[in-house]
Amino acid sequence: MADATRDLFVKKSFVVITGASRGLGKCIASKLVANLPRSSFFLFLSRNNAAQEIVASELSTSYPGAQIGSCKFDQGHLDQNIFDTLFTDVIKKHDLNVGDFEQAVIVHNCATVGDVSKYAWEMMEVASLQKFFDVNVTGMILLNSAFFKTFSGTKSRLIVNMTSDNSKIPYPTMSTYCASKSARDMYFRVLALEDPSIRVLSYSPGPCDTDMLANVRDKSSNKEFADDIKKFYSEGKVLTCDTSADKLVAVLRKNTFKNAEHVEYDDPL
Amino acid sequence: MADATRDLFVKKSFVVITGASRGLGKCIASKLVANLPRSSFFLFLSRNNAAQEIVASELSTSYPGAQIGSCKFDQGHLDQNIFDTLFTDVIKKHDLNVGDFEQAVIVHNCATVGDVSKYAWEMMEVASLQKFFDVNVTGMILLNSAFFKTFSGTKSRLIVNMTSDNSKIPYPTMSTYCASKSARDMYFRVLALEDPSIRVLSYSPGPCDTDMLANVRDKSSNKEFADDIKKFYSEGKVLTCDTSADKLVAVLRKNTFKNAEHVEYDDPL
Repeated sequence: MADATRDLFVKKSFVVITGASRGLGKCIASKLVANLPRSSFFLFLSRNNAAQEIVASELSTSYPGAQIGSCKFDQGHLDQNIFDTLFTDVIKKHDLNVGDFEQAVIVHNCATVGDVSKYAWEMMEVASLQKFFDVNVTGMILLNSAFFKTFSGTKSRLIVNMTSDNSKIPYPTMSTYCASKSARDMYFRVLALEDPSIRVLSYSPGPCDTDMLANVRDKSSNKEFADDIKKFYSEGKVLTCDTSADKLVAVLRKNTFKNAEHVEYDDPL
Repeated sequence: MADATRDLFVKKSFVVITGASRGLGKCIASKLVANLPRSSFFLFLSRNNAAQEIVASELSTSYPGAQIGSCKFDQGHLDQNIFDTLFTDVIKKHDLNVGDFEQAVIVHNCATVGDVSKYAWEMMEVASLQKFFDVNVTGMILLNSAFFKTFSGTKSRLIVNMTSDNSKIPYPTMSTYCASKSARDMYFRVLALEDPSIRVLSYSPGPCDTDMLANVRDKSSNKEFADDIKKFYSEGKVLTCDTSADKLVAVLRKNTFKNAEHVEYDDPL
């Protein structure tokens, strides 16, 4: 690692969290605000700006002095101008100085699960399929590049890639989701190979109680798979977002994870 | 397997090959025309229709009676109408009957290598990045679905997914290519899980003497990596497309490959 300071949580950070308006993203946002220095700045990005502003407001109350900005952002809306100006505009708006931050952190949490009512060979709708990969892969890469262009000179740089065991294990009716998560993992493995001074954690949060998991449970065309998820719920095996986000913080705090390698929620610390 | 006949090469087949105009696709097209029954029909799809019509003409001369059609097709041009009508139009144009074919084969060979002059965090151009994933992932899935909609009732169905060790191993300046190949592999793993009666071969052809490899050698921003490829050339380790296509045919002929698992050129048969 280029940065001699191993403790990621002592650094004044500029932190971006996508999909911070609800579910796991909201929980991760909360944990990072709680654990990073109060001098840090947090930027929440999601399509639902009203919801994430409520999250920001709640966190500002719980953690007085926390500096949180939010910006309406649709990762699948691939407009060059948005990616070119997003971070510089936020920095200007909040009167920040890029050079003041010891650490740049981006949490790529935003993703869509796709249409789980369809099997792989039923993926025929051009617009929805293109949008799916725009959100889960292309838009994420573009946002990542825009971020690292802005913070290219920052000493400590950290990416949290929210992944899934779906990136490694095929599940029925999850063909495009599995494909997109595999693509993301591999993209970051290359990035980490190219610049090992950037820390990359590909964290698989386990089966969390999110709208996404409920959607798969309720809408998957594969009854056996849907029943497996129902069983997970009924047997209490579905994790709270809070529990999984705590583990993420613990993994980051320990900071011994192998760069860009897949870390599962239940892997030993 | 649903089909009791293990020999894939005895069946009257409808065969689609993308990127058949040159390089590896051209070689694979040639081998399949040579090895499948003369009653089969071959459809070549690529952006360069003039070039693939020359290939078709040459093969028709070498293998009298071979039935080959070609169609200009840009996998990254995501137009719903094209995917909806492509196969039915070809079937009508050539006065074919879907029910006559014992086997439906699609060889997903078409792909673009992306911009190897850029590192992962330099991927900032919206239009080119979107087009890249449209070609390598989204368009391929759409074509695959359109094909299997047309041949849903065909007893024997085979997909050849041309993959790469890049789907498993990160290489510098290959971030998006690696990501797209990972996505494809995983997509087909799910498809094969969902319907094991479809045979899927994810074949990694090794370092073949193609324009793509020469492009990486000449344009990669990572000098060490480019030098490694140059060394491959100078040491005679680069395969001819013919050699690699022969191995592909041998793997298909043996037909014991594990469904949708990665098969490398140099894996033992």
